[in-house]
Amino acid sequence: MIYLTRRERFCAAHRMFREDWSDDRNSKVFGKCSNPNWHGHNYILWITVKGNISDEHGFVININTLKQIIQSRIIEKLDHRNINLDVDFMKGKIATTENLAVAIWNELKPHIETEGAFLHCVKIAETENNSIEYYG
Amino acid sequence: MIYLTRRERFCAAHRMFREDWSDDRNSKVFGKCSNPNWHGHNYILWITVKGNISDEHGFVININTLKQIIQSRIIEKLDHRNINLDVDFMKGKIATTENLAVAIWNELKPHIETEGAFLHCVKIAETENNSIEYYG
Amino acid sequence: MIYLTRRERFCAAHRMFREDWSDDRNSKVFGKCSNPNWHGHNYILWITVKGNISDEHGFVININTLKQIIQSRIIEKLDHRNINLDVDFMKGKIATTENLAVAIWNELKPHIETEGAFLHCVKIAETENNSIEYYG
Amino acid sequence: MIYLTRRERFCAAHRMFREDWSDDRNSKVFGKCSNPNWHGHNYILWITVKGNISDEHGFVININTLKQIIQSRIIEKLDHRNINLDVDFMKGKIATTENLAVAIWNELKPHIETEGAFLHCVKIAETENNSIEYYG
Amino acid sequence: MIYLTRRERFCAAHRMFREDWSDDRNSKVFGKCSNPNWHGHNYILWITVKGNISDEHGFVININTLKQIIQSRIIEKLDHRNINLDVDFMKGKIATTENLAVAIWNELKPHIETEGAFLHCVKIAETENNSIEYYG
Amino acid sequence: MIYLTRRERFCAAHRMFREDWSDDRNSKVFGKCSNPNWHGHNYILWITVKGNISDEHGFVININTLKQIIQSRIIEKLDHRNINLDVDFMKGKIATTENLAVAIWNELKPHIETEGAFLHCVKIAETENNSIEYYG
Repeated sequence: MIYLTRRERFCAAHRMFREDWSDDRNSKVFGKCSNPNWHGHNYILWITVKGNISDEHGFVININTLKQIIQSRIIEKLDHRNINLDVDFMKGKIATTENLAVAIWNELKPHIETEGAFLHCVKIAETENNSIEYYG
Repeated sequence: MIYLTRRERFCAAHRMFREDWSDDRNSKVFGKCSNPNWHGHNYILWITVKGNISDEHGFVININTLKQIIQSRIIEKLDHRNINLDVDFMKGKIATTENLAVAIWNELKPHIETEGAFLHCVKIAETENNSIEYYG
Repeated sequence: MIYLTRRERFCAAHRMFREDWSDDRNSKVFGKCSNPNWHGHNYILWITVKGNISDEHGFVININTLKQIIQSRIIEKLDHRNINLDVDFMKGKIATTENLAVAIWNELKPHIETEGAFLHCVKIAETENNSIEYYG
Repeated sequence: MIYLTRRERFCAAHRMFREDWSDDRNSKVFGKCSNPNWHGHNYILWITVKGNISDEHGFVININTLKQIIQSRIIEKLDHRNINLDVDFMKGKIATTENLAVAIWNELKPHIETEGAFLHCVKIAETENNSIEYYG
Repeated sequence: MIYLTRRERFCAAHRMFREDWSDDRNSKVFGKCSNPNWHGHNYILWITVKGNISDEHGFVININTLKQIIQSRIIEKLDHRNINLDVDFMKGKIATTENLAVAIWNELKPHIETEGAFLHCVKIAETENNSIEYYG
Repeated sequence: MIYLTRRERFCAAHRMFREDWSDDRNSKVFGKCSNPNWHGHNYILWITVKGNISDEHGFVININTLKQIIQSRIIEKLDHRNINLDVDFMKGKIATTENLAVAIWNELKPHIETEGAFLHCVKIAETENNSIEYYG
């Protein structure tokens, strides 16, 4: 088993809040992250896949194939978007990095497996100080 | 003359567009940066001040004083905010990094001079690939 | 299970030596790290906690709560301090990064569990080339 | 058990191709990475070893010993070299980062164990976006 | 006047040597950088342009236009190439970063000026420790 | 004219204080940086030299020569040392980064000029947020 990690980036707006809570309660739980006019981040995404090294070409997965999957399934839907309003796979969810990591895992998993590898980890850094990892 | 640079960060939403332009024209000029539902960035800000080294304490300016000026005048107004909607010194301006750098220069200059130093440069990185510098 | 990592930093002096060894032996084992007049580092600390995503707010743990625990229990005791002389939880221990990681784990563990999450990893980078991880 | 990671770097040329394939097929599978005139990278290597903390000196392994092993066994053979042509332990292998990670593992493993520790992970970053991890 | 910097990257092989020198002399002057089988780097390129902020759109230059100029004139010719053998604007020159910076300046200057801005600086980092800047 | 920058690093302890001031006054001016038991940093040093590109070898200065000058004149005296107690060229000076930059400039200038280049800038980062530049 060998692990390959691809880093991608997307810039997005978001807001953490619950519609069924008052502004006051949202502000108490989510602090400045619940600002009604949104804020945003340069998210960094690391996708780790695992598998055997192919005798034929020496790869676990062709990096260009992996790149295209992440681009078309994830980055195009998130980059320069509003996570709460524009992203189909985040509809109805609180826009925390935790929920985002799980949603990205679910989007990517079948497409990685089609290529004969396994999804191992979705890691997202929201800032240089805060990051989330999900292993399924 | 010696130069001291302080790095600070803020996370904000923005959108590049002109109200007097059609959606189509905004999209042609500003591309995905004009998304009506906003997007955002982890902006990095470097403030460079210059002056003489004080014989008394060996500083060009006390770093804590500089930090407090940048925090209260700039970061508190920008962090977890919407640059187009929430920031007094960006009202009526297109929210490009160029305009933001000039506006931050104008906000900071008098407060740096009060401390006996000179503002030398405002540098802002919007992403790891794009940055702006303004020297007045 | 989801993993959240918070990065914090502290600047500290230290020295690696054993009081019961001669200067010569200390120098042979610890090299320039045993300099009697101390040296220091910008330590980077990553604390990883794990747990379930709360349905209520979408977090594994409130990042501000985690931040405050790390600040009050660890950073305030280490930042701008001498690890050998000033830090209660390092008394009597050789000030290696290995021992520091274990000590920080012991300090943090009960306070993370009080918040309903689990401490997963303490990672410390002493320089850009050397780092230590401890998983309990 | 505690984990220590040492980062080292090497700059090398390489080319991904199979001698038994036509230029056309190499280009189709390996893309621009098969350029017959080579290309190169600033590879970053992280070697993670694990073991118990010694009561005597507080280390899992003396970092200088680890450094010398990595330098003499790996870096001196790879740095400012051509991975396909100059490196004994890569002879006859496709010069992918996957194959390189496994080869480095095999080179290092016995020398780490001689020092009373265990090799845990070989991680190589080929670019800031692509990296490989191997755990044996 | 405001300054905008765009970062781009390319991975290339090169070798520093003079054909009219013996292997011995090349090795004495250029050290391991003269390895006949090449070596390579992940070069990082920063292009800084300067100009006035346009009242119309708030940019000094449209970043996408700048990006396309750098891509088509520089990156496509250098990325995954051999600087000595494959790059027209480096023919007959010793492949030092100094010479590369001047050559890139000459390639880019007219195309930046066509867009109404001025080329200010070409900066190239060959490794994390070595970089070159050229201001014309 | 072309500019070459070499990055080096050193880990050192220091303390900011004046012997002729009371502990109280030192603490008021220098804050936690005046801790009597010292603290320390991973300092990063960038030395920029300028000159013409040699027709003979394509360098402004041989990078190995520059490296050796910085190592022997600066790094060996500062690395794993106490800036206040161990460093001859800092004796009698307050150990601020400003004073350190000027002292390093004075140490290096003649040795760079002996090699036919000019010292352009000494830059020191004390933390990832604070840095000093001196141009003579």
